[in-house]
Amino acid sequence: MRQQKNDPAFASTPAPPYWVVVFSARHSGTDQETYAATAQRMFELAATQDGYLGVESAHGADGFGITVSYWASLEAVAAWRAQAEHREAQRLGRETWYEHFAIRVARVERAYAK
Amino acid sequence: MRQQKNDPAFASTPAPPYWVVVFSARHSGTDQETYAATAQRMFELAATQDGYLGVESAHGADGFGITVSYWASLEAVAAWRAQAEHREAQRLGRETWYEHFAIRVARVERAYAK
Repeated sequence: MRQQKNDPAFASTPAPPYWVVVFSARHSGTDQETYAATAQRMFELAATQDGYLGVESAHGADGFGITVSYWASLEAVAAWRAQAEHREAQRLGRETWYEHFAIRVARVERAYAK
Repeated sequence: MRQQKNDPAFASTPAPPYWVVVFSARHSGTDQETYAATAQRMFELAATQDGYLGVESAHGADGFGITVSYWASLEAVAAWRAQAEHREAQRLGRETWYEHFAIRVARVERAYAK
């Protein structure tokens, strides 16, 4: 699935199978400045990881957001999860930025687009 | 994974495996009133389908949104996709409401939450 007419909000992913991490979060609203800078840094850092395929993210005004990242393999998902700077961001997220979150790791079997 | 402290934005899903449909869309902004009513109707209708587990959705002010729905089986995903009223909504979405969209069907293998 190619990127949607150069709309940068869409990830450009290969034919399945590949992996998706669905991250749903309720933001606490605490420490927004550090959060925003760290989130930007994590997007940039993720893109340098082996097996990274892309990311899509949407956040509503109510503080609920969904970020989906795409990966070539489960090993790539695990390596990103274990990346040192990302681990520190995860810790701050758990402790400060997110009231609640859910993470689901799934194997993409089918994909289509307009 | 239980619902997050009664936050209704989060889906309450069982232990994996189950299925997720990731729907990413750039809204055209056309015919928003009909879109909003239809989207609400689709959320209600999906919840009555066999194998429905839940849904999470986030939309930014830029018109990009992500909706993830969770299903007990691939058969449940297919049945929802083929549901008559849903098919008509899909047609309107393709023709009118969405500039672009991507749909990915994936098998959830791992899940965790705070």
